[in-house]
Amino acid sequence: MSPALERYERDTVFGNLWRRPDLSPRDRSIVTLAALITRNQTAELPGYLGLALDSGVMPSEVSELITHLAFYAGWGNAMAAIPAARQVFASRGIGAGQLPAANPVLLPLDQAAEAARAAGVAATVRPTAPGLEQFTTDTLFRDLWLRPGLAPRDRSLVTVGALLTAGHAAQLPYHLGRAMDHGLTRAEASEIVAHLAFYAGWPNAFSAVPVVKSVFDSRPN
Amino acid sequence: MSPALERYERDTVFGNLWRRPDLSPRDRSIVTLAALITRNQTAELPGYLGLALDSGVMPSEVSELITHLAFYAGWGNAMAAIPAARQVFASRGIGAGQLPAANPVLLPLDQAAEAARAAGVAATVRPTAPGLEQFTTDTLFRDLWLRPGLAPRDRSLVTVGALLTAGHAAQLPYHLGRAMDHGLTRAEASEIVAHLAFYAGWPNAFSAVPVVKSVFDSRPN
Amino acid sequence: MSPALERYERDTVFGNLWRRPDLSPRDRSIVTLAALITRNQTAELPGYLGLALDSGVMPSEVSELITHLAFYAGWGNAMAAIPAARQVFASRGIGAGQLPAANPVLLPLDQAAEAARAAGVAATVRPTAPGLEQFTTDTLFRDLWLRPGLAPRDRSLVTVGALLTAGHAAQLPYHLGRAMDHGLTRAEASEIVAHLAFYAGWPNAFSAVPVVKSVFDSRPN
Repeated sequence: MSPALERYERDTVFGNLWRRPDLSPRDRSIVTLAALITRNQTAELPGYLGLALDSGVMPSEVSELITHLAFYAGWGNAMAAIPAARQVFASRGIGAGQLPAANPVLLPLDQAAEAARAAGVAATVRPTAPGLEQFTTDTLFRDLWLRPGLAPRDRSLVTVGALLTAGHAAQLPYHLGRAMDHGLTRAEASEIVAHLAFYAGWPNAFSAVPVVKSVFDSRPN
Repeated sequence: MSPALERYERDTVFGNLWRRPDLSPRDRSIVTLAALITRNQTAELPGYLGLALDSGVMPSEVSELITHLAFYAGWGNAMAAIPAARQVFASRGIGAGQLPAANPVLLPLDQAAEAARAAGVAATVRPTAPGLEQFTTDTLFRDLWLRPGLAPRDRSLVTVGALLTAGHAAQLPYHLGRAMDHGLTRAEASEIVAHLAFYAGWPNAFSAVPVVKSVFDSRPN
Repeated sequence: MSPALERYERDTVFGNLWRRPDLSPRDRSIVTLAALITRNQTAELPGYLGLALDSGVMPSEVSELITHLAFYAGWGNAMAAIPAARQVFASRGIGAGQLPAANPVLLPLDQAAEAARAAGVAATVRPTAPGLEQFTTDTLFRDLWLRPGLAPRDRSLVTVGALLTAGHAAQLPYHLGRAMDHGLTRAEASEIVAHLAFYAGWPNAFSAVPVVKSVFDSRPN
């Protein structure tokens, strides 16, 4: 259908972008899966799920990534990703024993960071949407984010990937800052923007640039 | 694939969210269908269409809801929802006799509200996009919105659900105000935000909060 | 499922909108395909691909349009459009000989316009996302945009259609201005907004109006 698209995919995307040193193939896989699930692009998922597993993302991490995106991309997006993941897991002989438990022992809560977050949401969200505040605290920050099957830095990668892909400029500063608190470097954050230009489209990458700049400017590191 | 996602769906979404008293299951069904169709999530549609019918949404209202979203989510979104609806209707023995007519007697026009709306659009849209103004008046506000098969409050629920799901902050104030003119309470509006956090993703719910607050602050009731 | 939706499609969309004189059926086809691919609405694609070919869009232009959208809508969107295009081409006996080459002789670069663009991106993008700047220059503006299989005005139509459909208000001024530099008239730009109200949803059309107005106001012609 398009010899040019085939050439760009071979030479530019896989021959160049994925080999650039500023972001590991494992990190590229995580933000790419976040982009595809946020866009509900189920046709592309099997190939990139295989690439993610080949790049060091563990099956249990794939499961957690999909669950995380139920909240940050939308319930239906996560549900639509399940059949593709089931198919890839079955083809590789990955069984239920490699999936994370429904109720694991949670990571310890960072009390200071959580108090700051809760105070912000109490001031901004509570007066208008108390139900949203409650689910944000109980289900997201004192449950989902503390599940041990996906490291906090990786959850932040998934979240930043979803936000950038959906053009959520207002939510990006908090979560990009959180990602950098979790260890994401400036060079990695910058390269995520270049990477997602391809998977979320150029306009979302360009719209993210001033937001990423504002986060860089606001931090000492 | 994800025991945790299964647990969240059972305990948090259906065991908690859908049972909260501030929004009826029928209203939750309407905004959920609006979110799924706006996102083109056809895989999830059959289950939620069944839930909507079980919650008191009539088949004729489902038909009107899909038609309404052709305009507020996009033509292709409505067309993509048709096969799922046809399948659910067939499985329940719902026939063409239960569908609304193509050309029913329309509801009476609220002359004062329509004059105010038309004046606003004449000032803002006409100088740049006169064709858009014409279709907005003729097809939307003097035809679609007056179709009797879906109550004005329900059309507003559908519209607000579509806007919040797609992140249309600029359009939300007018339509949330219109929904409240049509009888939506503050508690219901607030709970829609919490409900759609799950179906449209957390970032859209958070982005809606300041817009909803501005509407609440601007109204006496 | 919906006699009303059928009526609106027959009378309003095809009986009225597509026949309006301010935008040619060929141009309407191009922006409609851009909208459908940007929304990943593959179910609607075969019908509108056929309409595009019937309206004078050449098979080689369809191929270029899909490739162009890999960059402006997202890689997965373009990939998801391939099966529908392959099916339509096969049903019409369109073979590989009618597709554009992977590496054609490129159009000459407009040195002055490119210098202005590059200077803008060097100032805004380079300090934060140097990788994005590099791909934007090398892959987009000195390769993709210079491919001869789709005229610059048509590439601009595709880009503007994608931006308006995805609600990218920040990117629209540059590309609408570029489209007008490439020959798009005010009346055509205005009618694109009315046309995409149907295919991208009313909220995106309304959100585009003030942006389009600002572009009109900033230009002598």
